[in-house]
Amino acid sequence: MVATLTQGVLVTIIGEAFLQYRLVNLLTKFKVSGYTIIPAQGAGSHGKRMGDVAGYNTNIEIKTIVDLETTTQLLESLKPLQANHALIAFQQKVEGLFD
Amino acid sequence: MVATLTQGVLVTIIGEAFLQYRLVNLLTKFKVSGYTIIPAQGAGSHGKRMGDVAGYNTNIEIKTIVDLETTTQLLESLKPLQANHALIAFQQKVEGLFD
Amino acid sequence: MVATLTQGVLVTIIGEAFLQYRLVNLLTKFKVSGYTIIPAQGAGSHGKRMGDVAGYNTNIEIKTIVDLETTTQLLESLKPLQANHALIAFQQKVEGLFD
Repeated sequence: MVATLTQGVLVTIIGEAFLQYRLVNLLTKFKVSGYTIIPAQGAGSHGKRMGDVAGYNTNIEIKTIVDLETTTQLLESLKPLQANHALIAFQQKVEGLFD
Repeated sequence: MVATLTQGVLVTIIGEAFLQYRLVNLLTKFKVSGYTIIPAQGAGSHGKRMGDVAGYNTNIEIKTIVDLETTTQLLESLKPLQANHALIAFQQKVEGLFD
Repeated sequence: MVATLTQGVLVTIIGEAFLQYRLVNLLTKFKVSGYTIIPAQGAGSHGKRMGDVAGYNTNIEIKTIVDLETTTQLLESLKPLQANHALIAFQQKVEGLFD
């Protein structure tokens, strides 16, 4: 039996790769305990800019597990970026082994 | 406070890499607003074909966020592919910042 | 209509890349029907060792879909690894097309 599963919110941010530095800075500002970055390709109308581009873009997927309050603040901080950049973010409740 | 989180269904499709073109065509047919593709390795009995192969395969993971009705139709469209190809797909409700 | 969606638990393990062999062995021991491996970068205090390292690490993300009982046993088996390695794991209920 796993007696002590931790509860948290998995936040996934998918955006243009050149936003990586800015997004990592943002996560650092929120003092997240860790994050994972995965290179990705994307297409579609996710955000304004991506809709302008034909074919694939070079994207990144950044994941972090935080508490619910941080999730809300983090998503709020991402909103202004969506005005000018292809960026989506979503949250999911998870439980498991993490800080 | 994030007043306006959008509700949606995250659909994740994991399959053999050579299915990428066909899967993207399918997503385009469903007029998804965007999708993300991540290269992956896989092993196991996911689907018929993957069970035949020893060791790793070159796979892709494709993610898209759609509404519940599209999810159902999309999964239904994927079912025939499972007969001959290593493919899994699953859905999760998410909320966040996306179209 | 998708009449027959399967229920399962998506287990995501994120850890240092050199743990890949050991983690795959563990999954094999649990006779999982399949798994997906994605290369990733990570940073932060996820686990003891990662906190010691400045900057990025080479990580892997391993995903598998299992039943609830296997999830519990799998997470329990991962706990000892967390003592000496940067490793997180979390579970999410999913439904879809998989064995």
